Amino acid sequence: MSEKKNVLVGQSGGPSSAINATLAGVVEQAFASEKVDKVYGMSHGIKGVLEGWIIDIGTPLSGPAELGRLIHTPSSALGSCRYKLKSAKDDPAAYKTIFERLKQYNIGYFVYIGGNDSMDTVKKLSEYAKANGITDIAIMGAPKTIDNDLHGMDHSPGFASAAKYIATTFAEIWCDARVYDYPTVTIVETMGRHVGWLCAASAVARAQGEAPHLIYLPEVTFDDAKFLEDVKAQLAKSPAVVIAISEGIKRANGSYVGEDENCAKVDAFGHKTLSGACEVLASLIKNSMDVKVRTVNMSILQRCAGHLASSVDLHESRILGSIALSRALDGVSGQVSVLNRVSDNPYRVEYSTVPSDTIANHEKAVPREWINARGNDVTEELVNYVTPLLGGVFGSDLSAGYPKHFRF
Amino acid sequence: MSEKKNVLVGQSGGPSSAINATLAGVVEQAFASEKVDKVYGMSHGIKGVLEGWIIDIGTPLSGPAELGRLIHTPSSALGSCRYKLKSAKDDPAAYKTIFERLKQYNIGYFVYIGGNDSMDTVKKLSEYAKANGITDIAIMGAPKTIDNDLHGMDHSPGFASAAKYIATTFAEIWCDARVYDYPTVTIVETMGRHVGWLCAASAVARAQGEAPHLIYLPEVTFDDAKFLEDVKAQLAKSPAVVIAISEGIKRANGSYVGEDENCAKVDAFGHKTLSGACEVLASLIKNSMDVKVRTVNMSILQRCAGHLASSVDLHESRILGSIALSRALDGVSGQVSVLNRVSDNPYRVEYSTVPSDTIANHEKAVPREWINARGNDVTEELVNYVTPLLGGVFGSDLSAGYPKHFRF
Repeated sequence: MSEKKNVLVGQSGGPSSAINATLAGVVEQAFASEKVDKVYGMSHGIKGVLEGWIIDIGTPLSGPAELGRLIHTPSSALGSCRYKLKSAKDDPAAYKTIFERLKQYNIGYFVYIGGNDSMDTVKKLSEYAKANGITDIAIMGAPKTIDNDLHGMDHSPGFASAAKYIATTFAEIWCDARVYDYPTVTIVETMGRHVGWLCAASAVARAQGEAPHLIYLPEVTFDDAKFLEDVKAQLAKSPAVVIAISEGIKRANGSYVGEDENCAKVDAFGHKTLSGACEVLASLIKNSMDVKVRTVNMSILQRCAGHLASSVDLHESRILGSIALSRALDGVSGQVSVLNRVSDNPYRVEYSTVPSDTIANHEKAVPREWINARGNDVTEELVNYVTPLLGGVFGSDLSAGYPKHFRF
Repeated sequence: MSEKKNVLVGQSGGPSSAINATLAGVVEQAFASEKVDKVYGMSHGIKGVLEGWIIDIGTPLSGPAELGRLIHTPSSALGSCRYKLKSAKDDPAAYKTIFERLKQYNIGYFVYIGGNDSMDTVKKLSEYAKANGITDIAIMGAPKTIDNDLHGMDHSPGFASAAKYIATTFAEIWCDARVYDYPTVTIVETMGRHVGWLCAASAVARAQGEAPHLIYLPEVTFDDAKFLEDVKAQLAKSPAVVIAISEGIKRANGSYVGEDENCAKVDAFGHKTLSGACEVLASLIKNSMDVKVRTVNMSILQRCAGHLASSVDLHESRILGSIALSRALDGVSGQVSVLNRVSDNPYRVEYSTVPSDTIANHEKAVPREWINARGNDVTEELVNYVTPLLGGVFGSDLSAGYPKHFRF
């Protein structure tokens, strides 16, 4: 048997309710392997490696209850970063520091959990290792993003929990919005950056009521006049209108609706930071019709509401963490663990890995055919895609009123 | 035995996650009584009585599962109104219409569920009945408000569920806020109008982390300069600062902080409608120090998040509905069911009724001694007051890892 090596695992990008389940999966796999000695974590992702913020995480997670508690804790327990690693050509010192640090801690297995920017880090580090003859460190990625914009997989871990929060909340907002007898419009804004998956998930709430009546995604050009026509037509049918909008909706001239009020800022990755589209549209409605308008910005609540995490999401996220380390232990490097759907009903997935550049720096949008012709709603296909991700009963299944037992 | 009469029940004011539990309590009590024939509901409260919007609710609630589902459905299932009943002297026609309608439906027992404005309706109708020799209709109130501002009782039904949502969400926001390694300020705004109970409940989240670091209630005059000093001092101790503010915080000149951006409107009761204090304070911080600031407005989510309803709240709310009708069946009129705390540990309450004018049109503020001297935090007494209201395990209690059974 070869010499034991240590594991280093980190989290990066925006938080989610499932990213700690992936971390738990990595740690469980490390505990199960004879090849692993210690399990280290990077505080604040790759920036923590550069700064030397490396901590022992195997010890605090070795008790009987800790891993379970970690799985149900939202956001990134190790801390995150939005540090953009430059190319090895542009910043050779960073790579030198990182690989020296990995050697110092006797790291054989490196797992990075994050979205498309984080998978760019996996790609760059694994390519650098290969180019420089570093063969004793396997560098793997495990996916995460609430936006569901990752290529190479059926859905992104973390998306389902945010979608469950959104669907739950829209059903509750519908209960609230309809109590008065005068016309009201409630505009609810979701995250999702350039893609509309999170906003589209609001349609699942219709299983519990009518809301949302209208859904606007960034995949379709937003038109103020058509929007006002839609709202008027809906008010004629229902006194309480609930509208779902994505933070990333854009007008034909390419400007974000949310930019009208909030000067957009650019983050370290060149992404515009958006907010406030719901306020812009509320003003638009108030200026053109006499109706009470309310806004709800789901803000960070949608990505950290661990109490509503999807058990499907936690389960899958954990397995994706285990697989990433498992393949690293087999000597694979530069790949990302993924899952693909085999069937909707019963819901089934299968797991594999793909090269990190399948995912790095790409964005997967909602297919145009899953949005209606007018661009103000989603289709049944989208609802069927999202619905199985939200639920799932782990433990004793009492949904029928008595325990349902497993039988082969 | 006397002739059977019908029950009429209505809901009024802002929604809560527990107001339907009170409705269920009224209906259960009606089903249990031999004095009651049919159970009617007012659509949109007293306005529905004036308009003739009265519906049979006993039939749809008579199945085995419906009452249970009603209890766990947030917001006002019967619809609400913010209609202010004038005095009998100023609007005799309204009283004539209401009492004719009650006679037409053979109503002997009238229960109105709501806050201090709704209890004003109970007061006026019962006084009118007494003054006009109408002795065959008992008019009772059952309390409800998330704001916890009702006099005559330990806490207001509906408050505990909103407080549970707020405490849960602050603990999750803390997980989210602390992931980056640079300084951030997150300002979270709660409802509560002129009183700070909901905002104060955020302090319970400290059992799960550090947030909120600072708490500002309307009971203490808000001072911009002191606020900025507090934020700077806290940033020196913790890179991620989370601040809880109440929508109703006011400056020394009496102006609402939230009025800076949003012109306040006045509703039918003369209440100013507020929003946006978090945005005003975010600008204040950004203009005076270099730190990333985020805002979260909990908006209507805090009052309709039925999935996080407190089981203590649902239990108590249900009993208060039952008691209101039970006393009406005994011939009591013009009273409101209330609960008072006998002990904190174990948490115990007792139920009674008080005259409606104990509650109507009054507001109960957070005692000054439950707020710290500087006015930027609450005391342990407040946390001890709120904590027992949030939880409680109904059904099999597995908190110890095995079922805890009841023993005398």
